[in-house]
Amino acid sequence: MNRRILLVRRPQGMPVPEDFRIEAAPIPEPADGQFLVRAHYLSVDPLQRVRMNESSTYGATIPLGTPVWGRMVGKVVASRHPAHAVGSFVEGMLGWQEYALSDGSSAKAEYAPGVTPVDPALAPISTALGILGMPGLTAYFGLLALGQPQPGETVVVSAAAGTVGSLAGQIARIKGCRVIGVVGSPAKAAHIVDELGFDAAIDYRAEPDIAARLRRLAPAGVDVYMDNVGGAIRDAVMAHLRRGARIPLIGRISQMHQAQPMSRDPQVALMHARARMEGFIVYDWVDRAAEAHAAIAGWLREGRLTYRETIHDGLENTVPAFISMMQGGNLGKALVRLSPP
Amino acid sequence: MNRRILLVRRPQGMPVPEDFRIEAAPIPEPADGQFLVRAHYLSVDPLQRVRMNESSTYGATIPLGTPVWGRMVGKVVASRHPAHAVGSFVEGMLGWQEYALSDGSSAKAEYAPGVTPVDPALAPISTALGILGMPGLTAYFGLLALGQPQPGETVVVSAAAGTVGSLAGQIARIKGCRVIGVVGSPAKAAHIVDELGFDAAIDYRAEPDIAARLRRLAPAGVDVYMDNVGGAIRDAVMAHLRRGARIPLIGRISQMHQAQPMSRDPQVALMHARARMEGFIVYDWVDRAAEAHAAIAGWLREGRLTYRETIHDGLENTVPAFISMMQGGNLGKALVRLSPP
Repeated sequence: MNRRILLVRRPQGMPVPEDFRIEAAPIPEPADGQFLVRAHYLSVDPLQRVRMNESSTYGATIPLGTPVWGRMVGKVVASRHPAHAVGSFVEGMLGWQEYALSDGSSAKAEYAPGVTPVDPALAPISTALGILGMPGLTAYFGLLALGQPQPGETVVVSAAAGTVGSLAGQIARIKGCRVIGVVGSPAKAAHIVDELGFDAAIDYRAEPDIAARLRRLAPAGVDVYMDNVGGAIRDAVMAHLRRGARIPLIGRISQMHQAQPMSRDPQVALMHARARMEGFIVYDWVDRAAEAHAAIAGWLREGRLTYRETIHDGLENTVPAFISMMQGGNLGKALVRLSPP
Repeated sequence: MNRRILLVRRPQGMPVPEDFRIEAAPIPEPADGQFLVRAHYLSVDPLQRVRMNESSTYGATIPLGTPVWGRMVGKVVASRHPAHAVGSFVEGMLGWQEYALSDGSSAKAEYAPGVTPVDPALAPISTALGILGMPGLTAYFGLLALGQPQPGETVVVSAAAGTVGSLAGQIARIKGCRVIGVVGSPAKAAHIVDELGFDAAIDYRAEPDIAARLRRLAPAGVDVYMDNVGGAIRDAVMAHLRRGARIPLIGRISQMHQAQPMSRDPQVALMHARARMEGFIVYDWVDRAAEAHAAIAGWLREGRLTYRETIHDGLENTVPAFISMMQGGNLGKALVRLSPP
């Protein structure tokens, strides 16, 4: 029989065993173009929790009464598919079950790419769910492509003892960065420093003031914050950014089991759209003023742009002009004219 | 006499006239290395409101009892400075007053670059406070350097009838984008569409559901949102981002007059540090998996990185493993082993 784990109730906050049920079904047989996989390892991942909600941030919700969507690495034990021979290993979103039938594709391609071969000579096959699987790609591209760490910079990683965090921190070390990990226990703190080579660890459960600790550990500020958790840890790190810092938004595990996630936090929309939000202060750009002035004055002369001014006369009208501008009473630039040029 | 406007009380919310006082002082005389500027125009800007708070986001607070920090364009009327001749025009952070003494530099260089010459042949000198001043640089570099609009993309600009917004929207049109402006009155809506060439306007005071209106105006989503206001308008636009959208954070005028600004909004920290926050979803990167696998497997072989797994045995332990992982009970990758490979 094929035992599998169904989602039978949507978890409220932290999941409990009663949200799930194990059922046994016949082991299916492959039709033409299909193959049967016997599971060696199943993956348990934070993202699965998100997909158990009625309305998932990622646009894909596990239906009640079906096997939990989850990643599996296993061996092909029967095949009528040209690309997946019996005896080969594969990884894919094949569900929490002992056997899975597949045609190699994924019904939800955007959220779960198809089944891919696993090379057992490269590393133990379990790593296809870890450092050589989705968590590995997350750590690698999230840190390097979005975080762009430079040698000598300070990188902070949260959930640093997890798959993504521990790999990202080690890659940052390889790239010549100073790495501080945020973890949730003394054992994890010891692990990331002693075994993984992190420069320092912060145990957020033991540390009453993460921001203060961070100021001591990284007086010049944080250049890259690989955010796996969101919430209060993110806020503490963000209070201590160095100018030009980069924050790859990887996960929000601290918010996932909350029935009411943080409202109005732009992080959710940014993650959903893979979008980028960046702070701007004009004084950083004044040494390139000539370039902007030439372009703007050129467009003005060519009649391709125009401008308006709302002019108030006399010093005594400065404060009224200011208040009016704050209330939206101007078209274009609000100015006070004191004397004709 | 030199009349000037002092800040005498910190505004609570929207400023009122009683927060200020006009005083008259003698017109100062330049010492060696100084020059005297007679004001033609004073600027009233949203940023000044921030600097009136006890604790300014931008690290610089106007002291009580001193002239309000503000930008001025004027003429040099007396000079003992080699670079600023009598009769020339200058722009700088010279305060809300009729005359200002300067040595050309700025006491707060980071927040107020020094006095710069103004060329009256380029455009009317008042534009040195507008499209050829700080607002011009803000629109130009905020939109082009941070927003990176591409031809055919949809750009949304808030405070679109203001100096920065109206210029940014026109530049986006010049760059071949479709431009939607958010404004606060029917007159402003008509102005940006009829006179400035915006493709559409949303009057946020008249429109009960900005997000719904935006969905109709830009069904494929927003590529660039030039955020001059923060708050609810930002949230509405962010609910409708296209994948890979860019959001330059320029200003938060909607929040500025609030005694208690939005708490825990990462926007403030991003603006302060000119930092970048970017959403990551691993499925965007799977076609580059080989590159990551080669690097990670290579580092693994060289002993430059290591990994840990927390393994639970048996399908019946999948749910407990999942809950334990959600509670932080794992080191490295959490896995369930069903059968030995």
